Amino acid sequence: MSSRDLIHATYRLRADRDEARRLARFIAYEQTVELPERLVTDPALLRDVVGQVESVEPADDGCFAARIAFDAGLASGQLAQLVNLVYGNVSMYPGIRLQALELPGSLLARFAGPGFGIAGLRALLGVHDRPLLATAVKPRGLAVEALSKLAHDFALGGGDIVKDDQNLVDPDFDAFRRRVEAIAAAVARANARTGGRTLYFPHLSARHEDLHRHAAFVREAGLRGVLLCPHVLGFDTARAVAQAHGLVHMAHPALSGALTQAGDNGIEFGLAMGTLLRLAGADISVFVAPGGRFRFSEAQATRLAQACTEPLGALAPAFPCPAGGMDITKFPHLCQRYGRETVFLVGGALQAHDPDFARATAAYREAIERCTVVGHPT
Amino acid sequence: MSSRDLIHATYRLRADRDEARRLARFIAYEQTVELPERLVTDPALLRDVVGQVESVEPADDGCFAARIAFDAGLASGQLAQLVNLVYGNVSMYPGIRLQALELPGSLLARFAGPGFGIAGLRALLGVHDRPLLATAVKPRGLAVEALSKLAHDFALGGGDIVKDDQNLVDPDFDAFRRRVEAIAAAVARANARTGGRTLYFPHLSARHEDLHRHAAFVREAGLRGVLLCPHVLGFDTARAVAQAHGLVHMAHPALSGALTQAGDNGIEFGLAMGTLLRLAGADISVFVAPGGRFRFSEAQATRLAQACTEPLGALAPAFPCPAGGMDITKFPHLCQRYGRETVFLVGGALQAHDPDFARATAAYREAIERCTVVGHPT
Repeated sequence: MSSRDLIHATYRLRADRDEARRLARFIAYEQTVELPERLVTDPALLRDVVGQVESVEPADDGCFAARIAFDAGLASGQLAQLVNLVYGNVSMYPGIRLQALELPGSLLARFAGPGFGIAGLRALLGVHDRPLLATAVKPRGLAVEALSKLAHDFALGGGDIVKDDQNLVDPDFDAFRRRVEAIAAAVARANARTGGRTLYFPHLSARHEDLHRHAAFVREAGLRGVLLCPHVLGFDTARAVAQAHGLVHMAHPALSGALTQAGDNGIEFGLAMGTLLRLAGADISVFVAPGGRFRFSEAQATRLAQACTEPLGALAPAFPCPAGGMDITKFPHLCQRYGRETVFLVGGALQAHDPDFARATAAYREAIERCTVVGHPT
Repeated sequence: MSSRDLIHATYRLRADRDEARRLARFIAYEQTVELPERLVTDPALLRDVVGQVESVEPADDGCFAARIAFDAGLASGQLAQLVNLVYGNVSMYPGIRLQALELPGSLLARFAGPGFGIAGLRALLGVHDRPLLATAVKPRGLAVEALSKLAHDFALGGGDIVKDDQNLVDPDFDAFRRRVEAIAAAVARANARTGGRTLYFPHLSARHEDLHRHAAFVREAGLRGVLLCPHVLGFDTARAVAQAHGLVHMAHPALSGALTQAGDNGIEFGLAMGTLLRLAGADISVFVAPGGRFRFSEAQATRLAQACTEPLGALAPAFPCPAGGMDITKFPHLCQRYGRETVFLVGGALQAHDPDFARATAAYREAIERCTVVGHPT
């Protein structure tokens, strides 16, 4: 297979060695020709279409790791078909987890990737030397005036990005327009006062038919980005909407646990929330930080941050964005942990820190500035 | 909360009683205001936005079931936001599985549901008194002529629906158009010969920007439906594409295992593959039959078939479509098991049955007709 471009997918198999070998062959057939081995005799199919089991080796926790090569053409240059090819049917089979993916340059070249990436977002903000501070406008149910005041005060306090909570969804376009205009105006007022460039990213969630209308309005309102839930909307839908309107794509992890949480099924954390999201054009990947109210491990967070920034063809790196349980006292550690190329998303902890939200924001911003961090996590 | 329309969501919690009570409150806050309890003091928020824990009761296998009521307005009449509301963030929390969903009529009325449903699809086919027989054109890599011959012979043998394999994705629109035209013409030739009405459903997978172009072409080519992977494309994207072009929506389960497979996480099988897919407009829900190469239980299959056909507002029932491991000898049992309102999807077993694919199809069609089945499974 040496002359062809290949996708190498590694699966973690909950099985003994014999069963792992059987499962590896099963994956190679199931994900391509989807026929039993005995029905596939055509040499061209066996050579060009059926996956090739490259190795089956012992892995952690008594499992085995199977590395399988697929012809890159089988992904048809599409994100949906790539996901389908590497994990579509076998997602339904117990004990098969997609652990790693190596994609050839020819396939990666079909994806524009993050439209802004770390450098582009820093250029928008004019901030180059420190991690970024973000917050969420919430909760849903608060009057537009109160939401606007939160956003305003965050900008006043020197925060970088204020986004809608992912539950902040309006009943219709007019309500969305009114709310977004009010919050955008509040942020603009604060920016005018401080000379800052705080960005406001509304949450885009609408019936499929209305997504582009919402996105176009956001851009026309002079805003530069949106919050999207790619695991809910579909990776490629999220990609296309942000890309078509030149908007920063801040990816929220809602529903991602379905892919990542089961230890023996699903898709590895960094792959699902880093690599695949960069293919989906995410500039920022929000994830739940270890130590917060969700139980993620330090290793998962490290892997995700790596996947956001490691080389991936010509695709720009994205910001990893840990969220949850970010108390101000933890910042020296957090900055050390994640390094400079990070967006810290602080929600409840910021609202709880000081009844004056601008003052709370300033305190967090200062905590971030106090960390003398280098470019890379230690 | 009696005067409002409520969504009742039931979660299965892997926890002891105290932890289950704590988790239930956590869900009620996390999925709505997404703030710690102590930060939410506004009586209007507590009354109208925060979820209400209705009960926490012992469930199977030492787990607890928590029933939580959400204001139906929080779903904003959107499928994406409904999924987000009932399972977005808590998908990332270990030990929380969405087990059941009761949706009020006012919310269900926002969804058109299956555009054809069981009655509409039967009307297209002119078949009213027996289960339907479907197959997949595969494998990928076969020349268009060979794929066309399979489809032709299936129609000749009296099959009802021939769909593309979900791995059958073309490099670009022109290749898609040529392939679909060839297969459609082959089916039309066979139909002309038999006087039958075998339907051909191409697989629609394209970059988001191209989905409508592909769908429009399918409809213009005189075809009546498509195969879609809603778990890959996004539920609402799949819904919108089929609906906009008046196409039957046959839903393939690729990637669904991410939602359904983990016992202590994810979304219950019937809910993910029945209820939510009907909201996504699926007319047929393909799933892996018990006894095949995937390990699904009879109970899961029963629950899915129920969810496809049970009352759900004014939404039409959808066909459950078991697939995999469907040997001809099992048909008396299968017909008995699933009842008349079923599409049986036979792939490899049909190709293996007889080298003459028309004869193989006729044999399977006859096996289905021989089953004297009533409307409901026993």
